[in-house]
Amino acid sequence: MEDLDSRYERIIRLRSDPSTFYALLGMRVEKLEEGRSCMALPVEKKHLNAGGVVHGGALASLADASIAAALATLMDLQRESMITVEMKINYLAPVREGLVRAEGEVIQKGKSIAVGEACLYDAGGRMVAKATATFMIRQRA
Amino acid sequence: MEDLDSRYERIIRLRSDPSTFYALLGMRVEKLEEGRSCMALPVEKKHLNAGGVVHGGALASLADASIAAALATLMDLQRESMITVEMKINYLAPVREGLVRAEGEVIQKGKSIAVGEACLYDAGGRMVAKATATFMIRQRA
Amino acid sequence: MEDLDSRYERIIRLRSDPSTFYALLGMRVEKLEEGRSCMALPVEKKHLNAGGVVHGGALASLADASIAAALATLMDLQRESMITVEMKINYLAPVREGLVRAEGEVIQKGKSIAVGEACLYDAGGRMVAKATATFMIRQRA
Amino acid sequence: MEDLDSRYERIIRLRSDPSTFYALLGMRVEKLEEGRSCMALPVEKKHLNAGGVVHGGALASLADASIAAALATLMDLQRESMITVEMKINYLAPVREGLVRAEGEVIQKGKSIAVGEACLYDAGGRMVAKATATFMIRQRA
Repeated sequence: MEDLDSRYERIIRLRSDPSTFYALLGMRVEKLEEGRSCMALPVEKKHLNAGGVVHGGALASLADASIAAALATLMDLQRESMITVEMKINYLAPVREGLVRAEGEVIQKGKSIAVGEACLYDAGGRMVAKATATFMIRQRA
Repeated sequence: MEDLDSRYERIIRLRSDPSTFYALLGMRVEKLEEGRSCMALPVEKKHLNAGGVVHGGALASLADASIAAALATLMDLQRESMITVEMKINYLAPVREGLVRAEGEVIQKGKSIAVGEACLYDAGGRMVAKATATFMIRQRA
Repeated sequence: MEDLDSRYERIIRLRSDPSTFYALLGMRVEKLEEGRSCMALPVEKKHLNAGGVVHGGALASLADASIAAALATLMDLQRESMITVEMKINYLAPVREGLVRAEGEVIQKGKSIAVGEACLYDAGGRMVAKATATFMIRQRA
Repeated sequence: MEDLDSRYERIIRLRSDPSTFYALLGMRVEKLEEGRSCMALPVEKKHLNAGGVVHGGALASLADASIAAALATLMDLQRESMITVEMKINYLAPVREGLVRAEGEVIQKGKSIAVGEACLYDAGGRMVAKATATFMIRQRA
């Protein structure tokens, strides 16, 4: 099994590919620890809906990504893969600008199911969303 | 109160603005009826994660948008505004290519709370996700 | 594999045991079809909270039970078992009396994950709650 | 507005009425603080499903009740009332016996919407479920 440093490197590299959804939204990994991640989304005009507020889908994407990154730190990505089974997000306050930070955390990792959650904060440190996600873990063929 | 045609036109126009999140993802309104919407997302490379699958956040965005559009058909948008309180989505099958269609529907619209759901289908007509969302409706000041 | 009739009989029998949670709440199976169930809860004073409304937990229990019963119709219960991974319920209207009916339905049954939903109706036919649940299916050892 | 002590007393009294759903399940308030509650459910045979495991609905009831109790500590119950808009619960481990404790906490209380969460622990201190709930707060007429 690869060591922690190369695992974290791989997690970040996969999420830095300029052709992927991470790049489209501008989400980036800021920090990884065992079972935890911090991801950031610098708000741009492209994230807003017609009302000038960041679209819920952008925050949901960030939440999902941060929980998945936290889970990835606990997995042997050469042997295991994950898929999101479901996600639930509560929006607590509208975001209009600045950096949104998501702190993802694994609550439980079983053999085939994992559950994690994310707290999203705006630039002023106010919690703007809270999400929970369930993943299925599969052995690669 | 504006007539239905101008209401539908307004809903589509707000979601066609090239500067918004709808345009970033390439989501578009295909059809509106009273309490229902159909939205489409033509899958491109930019929607994929590193595994070649459409990121859950893109589907969550489409689901949220389609339920909101369905709700908008029932609202007097000059007097009322909506915000998403929470959203929950189950992913049923991975999507790699083709057009994803979301059928949004309002389950209940009260004075201050509305609930809707969306079914997402891939190009072959298979259901790939199912979502529920809760909205708060507010009178504009 | 047991035939359909004995499978349905087993599902009903397991849920009729007077010592279980089903009996405590007074939930009963009314009908089973492939992938569908109808369960009923006759509202009694014991289901109410201090405000005279059926407690959300009673409706959540009925919803969970009806989706599980619907899923059980598709399973080989001698070889497979299910556990609820998560459940989500939206409450649409308060219930004070009468019979609550839950129509459970399986949306998708995969090898290890199944997803279903339930619509709950009061005696007047009004939808009072809508729920979604995810189950893990396991092979019995 | 009533003082804190009489508010806490009222919350506990309403949940101790032997005719209500709390008593049916045997749930009791163990502790209240501002925005927090601890509730307990001593597992009995009546809470189990046919597989000998506490029914998900019993845990969902406890989670809902503990979040509502936490929210009640922040409300002027003579002027405001709450209703559960939706609840979501992830089951992390089966429970067969012993005391289940729920720690409910308010994440956000706005003028008309409040969001809270609950962590449920078994007698050994293991987290067995995690729930989120959204409430609507209304002024009494």
